[in-house]
Amino acid sequence: MSSLPTNPPGDAPERAVRAIVFDTFGTVVDWRGSLINSFQRFGTERGLEAPWEKFADRWRAAYQPSLNRVRRGELEWTILDDLHHAALVELLPEFGIASLAASDLRFLTSCWHRLSPWPDAVQGLHSLRRKYIIGPLSNGNLSLLVNLAKFAELPWDVIFGADLFRHYKPDPETYLGVCAFLGLRPGQVIMAAAHNYDLAAAKELGLRTAFIPRPMEHGPGQTTDLCADQPWDIIATDLVDLAEQLTG
Amino acid sequence: MSSLPTNPPGDAPERAVRAIVFDTFGTVVDWRGSLINSFQRFGTERGLEAPWEKFADRWRAAYQPSLNRVRRGELEWTILDDLHHAALVELLPEFGIASLAASDLRFLTSCWHRLSPWPDAVQGLHSLRRKYIIGPLSNGNLSLLVNLAKFAELPWDVIFGADLFRHYKPDPETYLGVCAFLGLRPGQVIMAAAHNYDLAAAKELGLRTAFIPRPMEHGPGQTTDLCADQPWDIIATDLVDLAEQLTG
Repeated sequence: MSSLPTNPPGDAPERAVRAIVFDTFGTVVDWRGSLINSFQRFGTERGLEAPWEKFADRWRAAYQPSLNRVRRGELEWTILDDLHHAALVELLPEFGIASLAASDLRFLTSCWHRLSPWPDAVQGLHSLRRKYIIGPLSNGNLSLLVNLAKFAELPWDVIFGADLFRHYKPDPETYLGVCAFLGLRPGQVIMAAAHNYDLAAAKELGLRTAFIPRPMEHGPGQTTDLCADQPWDIIATDLVDLAEQLTG
Repeated sequence: MSSLPTNPPGDAPERAVRAIVFDTFGTVVDWRGSLINSFQRFGTERGLEAPWEKFADRWRAAYQPSLNRVRRGELEWTILDDLHHAALVELLPEFGIASLAASDLRFLTSCWHRLSPWPDAVQGLHSLRRKYIIGPLSNGNLSLLVNLAKFAELPWDVIFGADLFRHYKPDPETYLGVCAFLGLRPGQVIMAAAHNYDLAAAKELGLRTAFIPRPMEHGPGQTTDLCADQPWDIIATDLVDLAEQLTG
């Protein structure tokens, strides 16, 4: 695909960074705190008691194994909403929740569409958007990410869900697919994430990298991704700091 | 793909319209007037004289034949930027423009990324966005549409370019692809366009339809699409009127 200049000929900044794509769960939104709040409200309405923090952690724990089954080809392409739904059905007996209506299962799954942003996220994205194309590059499906953006007021220019590529990160098709759709070379795109594995995959393909630690993503006992494990191009304390480093 | 409720169980508006997708060239932006302005400025800078109105019309005239070659399989999948570029190269001799630098060809092609919105468009879209998911469904490629949205300040929630589907409208894969990515049934999506053929294709697949006449799209001599040729679900004078009819 062509890379078209946005300036008149003679000023073609072919090497400049033009776009930043963001991991979303954990990097932009606080999935764990948001889910726990939603589940507590749901439990109160339904008269259900459960250790909802553990419930959120157990549900998320099914995430990587589910994606890996798709990535290895053991499971045909399945969007994250449907993986979440299937994992929920498996999880409920563990918490002694015997039977929920189909509408309740859909409702709980849809809680992943309504997650609150970290306090710095919206302000940081607004600043970055003035200079760069910004969008999520998430393992969420496009519809989830659109609903999430409207709920959390994330000012994306474009939405990249895994279903556009029918591949999950860290498969190369996702990172390179973003570059192809944007008509940019990998070096013109920054991958921003709170997870070192995501940046390692992007860097391997020539994208630039920005690490934003989110030490409370998994709650107070978090042991992973507390700091950068490689000298990423940028390390920022949060998205406001990222914007200051890139546009200040 | 699942259709997930955004409201708690018991209030699942399964039949309600949730999204509106918009044809873009002609419906949202004034491609002809914008191109003529850009070409005139370019001509002045380069010391080139040409009947730029006719130049714009002739370039656009290559549009449908180019798309049809892709749609019929005579040409492999090619994004609109590249079709524009190829048509430009063919067009220049007709106007006695012998040789332009590669950067000038890219610059002229990139003028399609910087088109002004019709005067009602931005206000109308902001109103519609409060109640609906909104996005372009255009034969433009995603990168063109992202650049266009930033240039014209179009507040899209999501961008659907033809390259997501590797099909051009009115192929069914485009309209049904939007519904699939959004996790919505066709009846929950409105196609809004200034072109009757586009709405006819969408209606055939079960989408709802909104016609917005743009009688100056092709300049003062326009003879096509001056009015609705079917009783579309909604007929609006412009995008502000569409917003008033749908949200008022």
